[in-house]
Amino acid sequence: MGGQRWETGRTEAFSDGVFAIAITLLVLDIGIPGEEFDDLWSAIFHEWPAYLGYVTSFLTIGAIWLAHHAVFRRLRYANASVMRVNLLLLMAVSFLPFPTRLVAEAIRDESAERAAAIFYGLALLAIALLLSALWGVVARDRELLVPEVSDEEVNAILLASTPSIGFYAGAIGVAVVAPQVAAFGYLLIAVVAVLRARGDEAPAEQPT
Amino acid sequence: MGGQRWETGRTEAFSDGVFAIAITLLVLDIGIPGEEFDDLWSAIFHEWPAYLGYVTSFLTIGAIWLAHHAVFRRLRYANASVMRVNLLLLMAVSFLPFPTRLVAEAIRDESAERAAAIFYGLALLAIALLLSALWGVVARDRELLVPEVSDEEVNAILLASTPSIGFYAGAIGVAVVAPQVAAFGYLLIAVVAVLRARGDEAPAEQPT
Amino acid sequence: MGGQRWETGRTEAFSDGVFAIAITLLVLDIGIPGEEFDDLWSAIFHEWPAYLGYVTSFLTIGAIWLAHHAVFRRLRYANASVMRVNLLLLMAVSFLPFPTRLVAEAIRDESAERAAAIFYGLALLAIALLLSALWGVVARDRELLVPEVSDEEVNAILLASTPSIGFYAGAIGVAVVAPQVAAFGYLLIAVVAVLRARGDEAPAEQPT
Amino acid sequence: MGGQRWETGRTEAFSDGVFAIAITLLVLDIGIPGEEFDDLWSAIFHEWPAYLGYVTSFLTIGAIWLAHHAVFRRLRYANASVMRVNLLLLMAVSFLPFPTRLVAEAIRDESAERAAAIFYGLALLAIALLLSALWGVVARDRELLVPEVSDEEVNAILLASTPSIGFYAGAIGVAVVAPQVAAFGYLLIAVVAVLRARGDEAPAEQPT
Repeated sequence: MGGQRWETGRTEAFSDGVFAIAITLLVLDIGIPGEEFDDLWSAIFHEWPAYLGYVTSFLTIGAIWLAHHAVFRRLRYANASVMRVNLLLLMAVSFLPFPTRLVAEAIRDESAERAAAIFYGLALLAIALLLSALWGVVARDRELLVPEVSDEEVNAILLASTPSIGFYAGAIGVAVVAPQVAAFGYLLIAVVAVLRARGDEAPAEQPT
Repeated sequence: MGGQRWETGRTEAFSDGVFAIAITLLVLDIGIPGEEFDDLWSAIFHEWPAYLGYVTSFLTIGAIWLAHHAVFRRLRYANASVMRVNLLLLMAVSFLPFPTRLVAEAIRDESAERAAAIFYGLALLAIALLLSALWGVVARDRELLVPEVSDEEVNAILLASTPSIGFYAGAIGVAVVAPQVAAFGYLLIAVVAVLRARGDEAPAEQPT
Repeated sequence: MGGQRWETGRTEAFSDGVFAIAITLLVLDIGIPGEEFDDLWSAIFHEWPAYLGYVTSFLTIGAIWLAHHAVFRRLRYANASVMRVNLLLLMAVSFLPFPTRLVAEAIRDESAERAAAIFYGLALLAIALLLSALWGVVARDRELLVPEVSDEEVNAILLASTPSIGFYAGAIGVAVVAPQVAAFGYLLIAVVAVLRARGDEAPAEQPT
Repeated sequence: MGGQRWETGRTEAFSDGVFAIAITLLVLDIGIPGEEFDDLWSAIFHEWPAYLGYVTSFLTIGAIWLAHHAVFRRLRYANASVMRVNLLLLMAVSFLPFPTRLVAEAIRDESAERAAAIFYGLALLAIALLLSALWGVVARDRELLVPEVSDEEVNAILLASTPSIGFYAGAIGVAVVAPQVAAFGYLLIAVVAVLRARGDEAPAEQPT
């Protein structure tokens, strides 16, 4: 280790590719078999767990992309640890379509919904932990950062990533008792994460 | 909110990735089962609703991509609203392969064709509304725009996005009565949208 | 029309995305059902038509990408016709996984192999014609080109694209009589196209 | 040949696209049929060969991407041989999801596990050989390299790619006797390749 460097442009492009594909593959798991065409409207509505899974995973990956973007635009270059943690993060994000499919299929099956909701929550928790680890690895080596990034900013970003971890742990707890409630909880956490994503502070011109 | 900024390069790259993948996944839903190999030519022709769906959704996403391109090349940076509306737009575009598949399978099924054609139309309408909302959000905050963009141009683009919304609403109305006619109507709207897409005005050199 | 312009960077990125995805989706159609696991080696060899289809379509799209690259690096900007022909080219390339799958499944089926081989050839011919049309549209409006491109170069590229069209027409003729021969002919055309792809002439330093 | 040149930017983008898609498609092969929902936890654990295949192929492609990155950032431009070997490398990487699926399905089937593990190893070996050939082609023509790259560096990279080839050959030998051991061996080789990937040497500032 000790002093290895990677420029970040191609890593961003590769990560964006993986995020974009994982987010787009989610739709492949939504479908209505031909036998249900007799009453297609009710078949369409009956697919709601698939839409819930689609929207939740889409927004979760969207929020991860925003956070990833926020990390990388502050980097001058990456070191070996950043490259490795980033690869693990991409591996976890690419994996998400599998538990998404599982939760969409199992949510109305009493014997399976609990396991599916917990498994999905664990996948989300793993992603949140790896995202937090990515920033943690950056924060340990300030030389990786562009000079304008202040210590307060570094700590603020570290703190900002903590709540999702807590929320996911809590939602997994809920999943043990009430899997369907947890499924909506995961959606809520993703919506909040998208809404809380922050860009750069604009210089104070006239406020709009 | 108030003053958050994102540079647009990585958002464009991510959006292009999602558009490119959604447009390419459409082909996965075209196939001929081995039982129909006895008379393959007629099986190939019999798949025409799948080709119609493929071409319609491809050109629709192509037109969206051209319009998205037209929006983003006029931006200096994005604010939080742009990022969120853009994410919703990508979510709707990624979803399109599902109703495309449905309409291709149901178009010859009397009990299902109406529901499928309306559902597909609603998905297209949602995309048109979100694209319009994207430009609306930009138009509300002129600081996001590069300085060369005039007020006339902003209004012209706002106006240009309105007809598609009307066309889609009309085609959905047609789908209630004549689903197959509506299916060709959606194709027509996409063709017109591609043909109407506009780049930058070239400076008046000698006309070609 | 008359004077519309698009900068080419984002069009290249979008096209590259479509090419990369179409080329990668081809593998999804290769598979061995669990029943054939008793003698897996012979099942693996028995899949040779799938590999032939995979390699042929991969190299065909690879050659198209090289040719596309050669066109776009000579452009200063695109006009409306370039954007439209490019979209049609991408639509044809994205479609290729479907006839590829068909030819791989039908090549050993006497009643279907002829239709499948002709259909695949027609798809390849359409791609070759659209690629030729793309350059034809550029050649009609020299202002689109970067200034260094000479008239000889423009004509040389036009001529270079003609043989593939003839080869594909010929191979389709062969497919009527001998579909399996034609299948290998398509592979040969793709190999030749990759080998004939040309970059920029390097300035005459010491030859290597 | 003799003097053809391609600039590398678009080749990197296209290659990144193929790597990102191949790595993300791997998840499509993981799934649990509805009949096993009665005891979903045990069904989830029972899928371990699918996870093993997913992680192994993901890390293998990740390591290839890191190595590809290391090659291309040292290039001023590509010649015809680089373009062709790169296309073959992408073809082999795109193919990997097929043997991955095979090994995941066959690993618990006594009659098939041997063939599947050897076939997967051969695919990995082909990728390692093509990566080595890519650098070999570059090393033969130093003019392709940016001037800062020293001869020692060129040889060091050539040497660094040799062990994987040996490891894969060895693991294929193990697969003949003990396929399951070989499956874990492939994972180990991928992990080592990721850990050994090297960026640029940072200039000696204060060590961290």
